[in-house]
Amino acid sequence: MHIHTPDWVKHAVFYQIFPDRFAHSQTPHKRLLEGARWEDWHAMPTLQGYKGGDLWGVIEKLDYLQDLGITAIYFTPIFQSASNHRYHTHDYYQVDPLLGGNAAFQALLDEAHRRKIKVVLDGVFNHSSRGFFFFHDVLENGSHSPWVDWFRIHEFPVNPYNGDYPANYEGWADNRALPVFNHDNPEVREYIMEIAEHWIKLGIDGWRLDVPFEVKTPGFWQEFRDRVKAINPDAYIVGEVWHDSRPWLDGTQFDGVMNYLFTGPTIAFAAGDRVVMEQVQSRDYQPYPPLFAPEYADKMQALLNLYPWEIQLTQLNLLASHDTARLMTIAGSDRASVQLSTLLLLTFPGAPSIYYGDEVGLPGAIDPDSRRGFPLEANWDTEIYECHRQLIALRHAHPALQTGEYKVIYAQGTTYVFARLAQRQPSKELAQSNAEPSIGSDEVIVALNVGTSKVNAQIDLSNLGLMSKPNKILYGSASMEWAEEAQLTLRLPARSGCILAQV
Amino acid sequence: MHIHTPDWVKHAVFYQIFPDRFAHSQTPHKRLLEGARWEDWHAMPTLQGYKGGDLWGVIEKLDYLQDLGITAIYFTPIFQSASNHRYHTHDYYQVDPLLGGNAAFQALLDEAHRRKIKVVLDGVFNHSSRGFFFFHDVLENGSHSPWVDWFRIHEFPVNPYNGDYPANYEGWADNRALPVFNHDNPEVREYIMEIAEHWIKLGIDGWRLDVPFEVKTPGFWQEFRDRVKAINPDAYIVGEVWHDSRPWLDGTQFDGVMNYLFTGPTIAFAAGDRVVMEQVQSRDYQPYPPLFAPEYADKMQALLNLYPWEIQLTQLNLLASHDTARLMTIAGSDRASVQLSTLLLLTFPGAPSIYYGDEVGLPGAIDPDSRRGFPLEANWDTEIYECHRQLIALRHAHPALQTGEYKVIYAQGTTYVFARLAQRQPSKELAQSNAEPSIGSDEVIVALNVGTSKVNAQIDLSNLGLMSKPNKILYGSASMEWAEEAQLTLRLPARSGCILAQV
Repeated sequence: MHIHTPDWVKHAVFYQIFPDRFAHSQTPHKRLLEGARWEDWHAMPTLQGYKGGDLWGVIEKLDYLQDLGITAIYFTPIFQSASNHRYHTHDYYQVDPLLGGNAAFQALLDEAHRRKIKVVLDGVFNHSSRGFFFFHDVLENGSHSPWVDWFRIHEFPVNPYNGDYPANYEGWADNRALPVFNHDNPEVREYIMEIAEHWIKLGIDGWRLDVPFEVKTPGFWQEFRDRVKAINPDAYIVGEVWHDSRPWLDGTQFDGVMNYLFTGPTIAFAAGDRVVMEQVQSRDYQPYPPLFAPEYADKMQALLNLYPWEIQLTQLNLLASHDTARLMTIAGSDRASVQLSTLLLLTFPGAPSIYYGDEVGLPGAIDPDSRRGFPLEANWDTEIYECHRQLIALRHAHPALQTGEYKVIYAQGTTYVFARLAQRQPSKELAQSNAEPSIGSDEVIVALNVGTSKVNAQIDLSNLGLMSKPNKILYGSASMEWAEEAQLTLRLPARSGCILAQV
Repeated sequence: MHIHTPDWVKHAVFYQIFPDRFAHSQTPHKRLLEGARWEDWHAMPTLQGYKGGDLWGVIEKLDYLQDLGITAIYFTPIFQSASNHRYHTHDYYQVDPLLGGNAAFQALLDEAHRRKIKVVLDGVFNHSSRGFFFFHDVLENGSHSPWVDWFRIHEFPVNPYNGDYPANYEGWADNRALPVFNHDNPEVREYIMEIAEHWIKLGIDGWRLDVPFEVKTPGFWQEFRDRVKAINPDAYIVGEVWHDSRPWLDGTQFDGVMNYLFTGPTIAFAAGDRVVMEQVQSRDYQPYPPLFAPEYADKMQALLNLYPWEIQLTQLNLLASHDTARLMTIAGSDRASVQLSTLLLLTFPGAPSIYYGDEVGLPGAIDPDSRRGFPLEANWDTEIYECHRQLIALRHAHPALQTGEYKVIYAQGTTYVFARLAQRQPSKELAQSNAEPSIGSDEVIVALNVGTSKVNAQIDLSNLGLMSKPNKILYGSASMEWAEEAQLTLRLPARSGCILAQV
């Protein structure tokens, strides 16, 4: 079949926002809570505390995001929910009042779109919460409830809050706070489809789907895609699947997944034995054992072979999320690990996604610590910030980094070199002006030395069929020497990387 | 102060609808539940079962209501709630999905207004439910919840469903299913005021307020009135207060109350010793002990002296509600008790309110039995129905029955006679046509003999200053004889009443 994924994602740089922790608006707004006693913004997060971030705050930060080069935001859930992470949905049609409600979201959506920033929401459609109306009715009325078949009830009475007795219904991961929907019920299926349609009609640019692999009902995600794309063919659908995602990436379901198959090896290569095991072992990805370049090359090649290229270009690549520790902490505060990984992230096919705060070096152990309040500027790691800013700008400047072919050129010891090769697209402005479209290629070389000693790598580029001579260092502190016949000598300092191109 | 109440209420005949039980729509509509297994419509209601009545069904019944002479509907709660009576509000901004949601309500409102039928909703603002978002957050997050001060929490942990432990929060009538709002919190106050405003802006014609006497916060109901009337000065505000309501009927709060001070004596007089005590003793009104006419006259006079006349005209008078047994059952199936009471209801100052089904003689013990499904036409008591239809028509035809002065003329033994005397208003049509307005008086005599023997009553009308001679029997099977000097001899069969006027 012909697989089609949204073009804009191929060129996007995402920013993942955990709304309770990104920004608390400074401007006055009408709020349900005026004198709220929030958990201190800069204190260690707790499992149940709210810090009071809101969507007006995000609006105030759009300048910052735009300047950073962000073109799309993925929000962890924003719907009404009695949990600071909002994965326990109480109402799929209401934006949480603490975040500013539907009005604040509409304002945010308008303002983001005005800046050509896309907005993707998190859809938690496997389970709801104990307060979700239809489940609440089961709690209140037991077998009398007309909504019993919407969930997976084993026996009455159900015990929603009393751990001394069996819950008597299916909760996600055996958590009685998260009653699982009965997706086999056509009413439930229709209910979820209409939620998806509602927000797409309202203008959101896509759905990130929480634990979609839990939904086993045949055809469910196919119908989801069909109905979403019928409204907006360019809507992005990205699933939270941590491993081999071929069952969902056949072109009939998701455009991509959260690409933890990229995350694991990339950290294992860039951070190596610095990885703090207790920060990663409990999570369903593999940033260990440490990898050398040939092993990393194999893993990336295997990953790139796993799915169709059209899908690769719309994967959501990431180094961290609300579900993992932050890389800075995983790497034991080793800044170079972060920089090297970020270089790999911003140069890999698929849309890079930066977890809020990672760009300023925010540390964070596995949750709840990975969900800290966004730090004051005085506490930013400016070197990490500049690394992000520069790499994002380079990605935007180079079509090759977005959609170019990925070719491993050199993988020995701690040194990994690859090329991204693209036919340069006629730029939109030129096309519109009827001027001669720019022709030729965009070709970029990316090289990393993750080792603690500098390396001199002799690289043979003759088989690449380059149309340009990437003889300018756009990023990093490497030096190079070109010999005839496309022989490149790269001198890479310890723990460093670079990007080369002809400009 | 000058007290002003809505004129339309003075001329209205209300119909109280319990939405789960009035009508299930016959026409197809989009529903969340397609294959719902409702409790059988005609089976004895249960505390927790749903029978599936909906607002589309009400729309289909508007012809029936209009034909009956109904000009206003008071709905018991329609907002999203996990209880068949919907007094446990889950969301004050959503009409319950089982009822058809906000869309069905808008259609109903439009269609009712097209027919000049007003719509009053039930506002349950003293307490919410365990699934209400803000309380649910307290259940989920305990003292971490930002909404703790919205309720009256005594201690953590709270125990919403586990009766083995103290609830640790205030529930209405010690019911942990009904967490009480902290109305002293300005945020809560504002939240409730905005709900009231929202639905008034949307076009509803008033609020019936559930247990408003429980809200002790100074100025609360004054602000409620001010804000509602600022949007619609004609909005009707009627409180559920069962006894002396002077604290709320000073003109700054409610336009009226559910007039159980009328209900009790009226049943005690009309049904007398037929009243089945177990159907009334547990309720907060007094349809006992049996009353003779002089006692009844005293009680009505005391009631009419209790509040300003402007308030009297907008009281909500009733014989039964979802909170009482139905009169047919209270009176041990004695049809005459129902007819006599209905005569008193339709001829008393203030808006009569007919509890759905009472007009077709539906029986019902105290709840849940008083909330049966509306019966099939084959099971209607057509005599009771005709009595209602006729009395409603007479009330509409006679301004005196709506706003006329109430004068007791005769009260001896089982015989009670009163006059309703009004200056006839110029009719709207005449006023618009610039024709001479009709002048003169509208004068109606109402007489009842609740005894089991016929009576001959000699009635002296000379002190009334009648401008007409009410010598036509408009209702009932009495006969009469007029002598000079306004001496009327009325022959009233046992257990009967009549209405006289000059036509």
